[in-house]
Amino acid sequence: MDIQKIIIVSPMINELKEYIDQYNLDQEIRYLTDDKLTEEDLEWADAFCGFQIQKNIDYSKVNWVHSLGAGVDGFLSGRNWNENVLLTRTICSFGQRIGEYCLSYILRDAQAHQKFAEQQDEKTWNAITPELLSKKRAVIYGTGEIGQKVAGILSVFGMKVYGISLSGKPKSAFNQVAAIDSHFSVIKEVDYVINTLPLTDKTADLFDKVFFEQVKGVGFINTGRGKSVVEAALMEAVEKGQVRFAVLDVFREEPLPASHPFWEHPAITITPHISAVTTAKEAVGCFIDTLEKVKSGQVLENKIDVQKGY
Amino acid sequence: MDIQKIIIVSPMINELKEYIDQYNLDQEIRYLTDDKLTEEDLEWADAFCGFQIQKNIDYSKVNWVHSLGAGVDGFLSGRNWNENVLLTRTICSFGQRIGEYCLSYILRDAQAHQKFAEQQDEKTWNAITPELLSKKRAVIYGTGEIGQKVAGILSVFGMKVYGISLSGKPKSAFNQVAAIDSHFSVIKEVDYVINTLPLTDKTADLFDKVFFEQVKGVGFINTGRGKSVVEAALMEAVEKGQVRFAVLDVFREEPLPASHPFWEHPAITITPHISAVTTAKEAVGCFIDTLEKVKSGQVLENKIDVQKGY
Repeated sequence: MDIQKIIIVSPMINELKEYIDQYNLDQEIRYLTDDKLTEEDLEWADAFCGFQIQKNIDYSKVNWVHSLGAGVDGFLSGRNWNENVLLTRTICSFGQRIGEYCLSYILRDAQAHQKFAEQQDEKTWNAITPELLSKKRAVIYGTGEIGQKVAGILSVFGMKVYGISLSGKPKSAFNQVAAIDSHFSVIKEVDYVINTLPLTDKTADLFDKVFFEQVKGVGFINTGRGKSVVEAALMEAVEKGQVRFAVLDVFREEPLPASHPFWEHPAITITPHISAVTTAKEAVGCFIDTLEKVKSGQVLENKIDVQKGY
Repeated sequence: MDIQKIIIVSPMINELKEYIDQYNLDQEIRYLTDDKLTEEDLEWADAFCGFQIQKNIDYSKVNWVHSLGAGVDGFLSGRNWNENVLLTRTICSFGQRIGEYCLSYILRDAQAHQKFAEQQDEKTWNAITPELLSKKRAVIYGTGEIGQKVAGILSVFGMKVYGISLSGKPKSAFNQVAAIDSHFSVIKEVDYVINTLPLTDKTADLFDKVFFEQVKGVGFINTGRGKSVVEAALMEAVEKGQVRFAVLDVFREEPLPASHPFWEHPAITITPHISAVTTAKEAVGCFIDTLEKVKSGQVLENKIDVQKGY
């Protein structure tokens, strides 16, 4: 595909420009903030690259649209994309980032950080034996790039890792992969449940009361999308001990409203949607890599499938 | 070596016996608590196996003494062992245990767990980007079995790992190994300092004021021995920011006295000597493995070198 003119839209254009300049691209580039983008820019450009798109603008005038984030529900929902427009997204270091995020909270649990902190507050010297990860089992929802990377990291420690995907197709990173229709067979025997799924019609409200009734004292980690979780059902599951602790990076409404009961629950850890932050440097690296492949017609691992929704 | 009669001395003899019984050993075994051990037992036995030894008892009557712990300063200090007595110690899963312990606190730091917890207390939604471990560097004091295993675990994440040993002899688990006499060349540029060293004449008070003046904002993790650290110097280093945080599993006096200032310092984490707990099952596994090797004259990786002190 011939790409000569690119629009890059972002609140952090100066930082992006600094990294992009280092590549000495041949293309002509317009850097804009979201409020400055016009239809004329899209008529001028061959490609659009940004963190989000605006409702009332038609992006189909360009040949290629690249999302600077990994989650693209905002790019797809309520929009009929012209088939001629190539859609891609950022993947890059997300798997590693989410893997280290999940591992950090699994180790916090296995190494009893919070119990030792409580004992320290009370100046109590009382031995608790940390648990080796090789004794633990996890299930990861999502067996794509990110899920596989997370599974790979946990497997290093001898953890048994199950995967859940739409198809249930086996992937070597997992001990076993189950289809989402039969996931209840797997989740009964795990210690940790990790969600890395994108938001689609099939993953909305996936973690509901029926789901939580199947698990026993798990650690539940959500790095996917907030709308995959029925929050009242999660709260009830925490109260009942079906979920021993929850670590949530994403929420139905972000920022999480100050009045939300999650904030004050001792068994719930809140992080502000940072498990897969795109640093400007990484986003640019992935964009440049994708640009090269688009120009030379190579296979794109980060192409968005509109039907699947990611 | 012919081993027919064994004394096993421990406060947890019932648990040990349960695991040992599963091996159907040919040997005759006496299980005793420490207070019940007599000179007569040692005259009777070929081998002694225990967590500690008592000052006024001569253990040289047996041919083999096996420590159920990894640290053997208690077995060596103030005692001249007869050369004819074989001394061994437990190694087993210690490296993996200490590795997961260290990694859990390194990830707690890189993933900003404590900052997010503070923000949650204040119901503040404020993004902090976690740092990937591939950007971090660590130095590990001790390049033996345990140090190598810890280095291997950190290297999985792309961390650059230096080792410090008496000899400075290169080991493949480390990017570089420096001799203890020249360690200041390495420690200036690291993010984390991990001590796994045994207590010997050369490692007592190793981490002193002069040492701490060489580091800048490091995380200091001690899983070795408390007497390797000059506690007042560490406290001063924390106050000055030379040490950004300390995670201490071992102390000069254990249990740590309630009056000790470490308990209340927000930058110091205290765990009650649990980073390398010997579970009865593991201790027995290692003892049986060593027994087999002793009987058949195989090379022992866990033989204690009295001169070196471990």
